[in-house]
Amino acid sequence: MRILIDMDEVMADAIARFLEWYERDFGVRYTKEDLKGTKLSEIVPEEQRNIVKNYPHQKGFFKDLPLIPNSREVIEELYNRYDVYVASAAMEFRYSLEEKFEWLEEHFPFIHWRRRIFCGDKHLLKADVLIDDHEFNLSTFEGRAIMFTASHNINETKYERLDNWLDARKLFELITP
Amino acid sequence: MRILIDMDEVMADAIARFLEWYERDFGVRYTKEDLKGTKLSEIVPEEQRNIVKNYPHQKGFFKDLPLIPNSREVIEELYNRYDVYVASAAMEFRYSLEEKFEWLEEHFPFIHWRRRIFCGDKHLLKADVLIDDHEFNLSTFEGRAIMFTASHNINETKYERLDNWLDARKLFELITP
Repeated sequence: MRILIDMDEVMADAIARFLEWYERDFGVRYTKEDLKGTKLSEIVPEEQRNIVKNYPHQKGFFKDLPLIPNSREVIEELYNRYDVYVASAAMEFRYSLEEKFEWLEEHFPFIHWRRRIFCGDKHLLKADVLIDDHEFNLSTFEGRAIMFTASHNINETKYERLDNWLDARKLFELITP
Repeated sequence: MRILIDMDEVMADAIARFLEWYERDFGVRYTKEDLKGTKLSEIVPEEQRNIVKNYPHQKGFFKDLPLIPNSREVIEELYNRYDVYVASAAMEFRYSLEEKFEWLEEHFPFIHWRRRIFCGDKHLLKADVLIDDHEFNLSTFEGRAIMFTASHNINETKYERLDNWLDARKLFELITP
């Protein structure tokens, strides 16, 4: 079984960086609770919207991102049992390439370079399962499309869900009963 | 029709960099003629082999590589007519990511980020055509596998061939007769 796993909001907590940089720039600390069903650029004053949207295009945005809880250990278990690939739409953000590469080297060194994909469109990737937080990636995927819960996608009802990585243990039967 | 195009030796002349760095380090100028049916690391004295093999892992190796003749104009014509993607096995070489990104920005700015893939294995890419210089990429591809002629692959007989980009115009009927 070939499983594709997205990076941002699935392995790496990029929303934490949005909140951190917004506080740095505007002195206001939003929380993930504030972002339920939406995203930061949608709730800030209109004149700040483009500044926030531009954050991922800046150097350092993807550097040292916190891990999504339990992603490391559960993905390692999956990796040892299935054909696991990381598939990140990194091409949109030029500085993300090296920062994401280094982040994987630090936190997921067991994922071989052959199993890493930085792409644009994900719809040309052939696999059995895609775990992703974005509707636009899941909707064009031909295999089993699993939405990983993130604050912005909580109102989406079309997809099978993973709320967290501990649930993935059950879903992929990593724990023998 | 979805066409995947490899970068090194198909769009970018990485062999030129091998020859250049080898001359810089050892004072001997090999030519592509010397590399027919083989590669530089195979013909140098054994104690230099690992140094040569390590070149692509070093910063700067993929920077400012010369273009493969006519690649730019013919790929632009293909891009305007078909679903063209760049698919490069960049993940093996950490510094190649940013250098390849910048190289594409400079020479192929018309290729949208959604159409760029830096990967490891190419066998999970779904497409109709793959143009590549390496047997190990072509052999696992399920669509039409076209070998782009490079000095190292001239003795390979298993694949349909493109000897140069001008021939691609004929192959893909970009020229109306």
